[in-house]
Amino acid sequence: MQIKAVIIGAGNVGTHLAIALKNEGVQILQIVSKTMKSAVELASRMECSFTTDLQDINLQADIYIVCVTDNAIIPVLRQLQIGNKFIVHTSGSMGIDVFYDLAQNYGVVYPMQTFSKFKDINYAEIPIFIEANSPENQQMLFNFVKKISPHVQVINSQQRCMLHICAVFANNFTNHMCTIAEMLMKEHQLKFETFKPLLRETFEKITKYSPSISQTGPAMRNDLHVVQKHIDLLAQFPSIQEIYTHISNNIIEMHKKEE
Amino acid sequence: MQIKAVIIGAGNVGTHLAIALKNEGVQILQIVSKTMKSAVELASRMECSFTTDLQDINLQADIYIVCVTDNAIIPVLRQLQIGNKFIVHTSGSMGIDVFYDLAQNYGVVYPMQTFSKFKDINYAEIPIFIEANSPENQQMLFNFVKKISPHVQVINSQQRCMLHICAVFANNFTNHMCTIAEMLMKEHQLKFETFKPLLRETFEKITKYSPSISQTGPAMRNDLHVVQKHIDLLAQFPSIQEIYTHISNNIIEMHKKEE
Repeated sequence: MQIKAVIIGAGNVGTHLAIALKNEGVQILQIVSKTMKSAVELASRMECSFTTDLQDINLQADIYIVCVTDNAIIPVLRQLQIGNKFIVHTSGSMGIDVFYDLAQNYGVVYPMQTFSKFKDINYAEIPIFIEANSPENQQMLFNFVKKISPHVQVINSQQRCMLHICAVFANNFTNHMCTIAEMLMKEHQLKFETFKPLLRETFEKITKYSPSISQTGPAMRNDLHVVQKHIDLLAQFPSIQEIYTHISNNIIEMHKKEE
Repeated sequence: MQIKAVIIGAGNVGTHLAIALKNEGVQILQIVSKTMKSAVELASRMECSFTTDLQDINLQADIYIVCVTDNAIIPVLRQLQIGNKFIVHTSGSMGIDVFYDLAQNYGVVYPMQTFSKFKDINYAEIPIFIEANSPENQQMLFNFVKKISPHVQVINSQQRCMLHICAVFANNFTNHMCTIAEMLMKEHQLKFETFKPLLRETFEKITKYSPSISQTGPAMRNDLHVVQKHIDLLAQFPSIQEIYTHISNNIIEMHKKEE
């Protein structure tokens, strides 16, 4: 029997999840989004109906997947009238407890990846972390999620939140370090492209060995003259100067402990 | 005629440079290192002589390449007695001015890459930035460096220093963000390996598009509740908490400007 799903939220997470589920034979019944534009866009791609009004939600689905920003989860749950239907959210940072009093059968599906509308994703490679309110729901959710990725793990809300913090460091902050480099390069008429071989090597070392044994650079060498020179040269960018200082000190501190 | 080189310093940079030069037919005459162990190791790999005493330097080379840490460059130059022989250093942060009064023919060769003794490097892909004290020396250095990489660019000391700062952000700091994630994961009995697909996607987005358009995450979405929750949860690691705060604020600040 084909499983039917309603996707609530048509942002990056909702879009990629809907595509992956449809590809694996799940019938997407409806897209619910607060903006008409994203509702229409994703629904036409899914060949399904759409609405911008939570009151018009289709009640025939087996699972309701909430893919909205964290702040919107509780407001959305409060407005939803879906009885004892199974419902999940997809947030890294919100606990399973947001469902208390607002649902009877519920869980969490947290796909650990960075989603951008402009770039396709191979869902089969993504680790997905789940949690549910009963062993039966957990088993059901496990089987459902297994359709789109073989890498499914059950973890609790505390672990998931820590995992999300770590993902912020490993993805959002690494990306921002490069944004800073890109900005400084532009300011000095240098090309960011130059960094591609360095970035490839960095990525290879981190994934093949480990980041702690791959660390290099002036802070790692405890070369305080160079660190200070760099800090001085960043004077016209106070926030970036502060970031440089804190990270360098943390590298020095962390690698001293190891010696 | 085969070019002859002496390498001063047998650390990561000296080792990889010596290997690349030898592979391209440069004759490595001698390895000079302050520690006997690294001198012997690299010299045996280069099939050449070695010394730990700068007074015993071989005077038959065409070029002397100083691959020591920044702090050691001036002390090394002060002890060297090589007359008007051509000498270069390989530092990103030291200006060409360190040679004033200490040499007659000089320059800088800055290979922008992260070098680890445990990992081989394909030098042909590395961008190398050079500078010299005269147009003739610059041309000579350009031809010499071209042997090991087609990506040779002439830049001045100020540009090179900014490039080095950017390389610290793009490599050392991205790596450290992952070290922090690895440490936090370990503390919570979670595996860092889980991050490989996320890291691959991050690397692909940064290099294929650009870091500024690839940014995602709670700070980018201006989701201050999640940012604050993460900051609170990092209370037991004050330095990491501080780093999280500063980088998140900088992401918010930088991407606000763009709107």
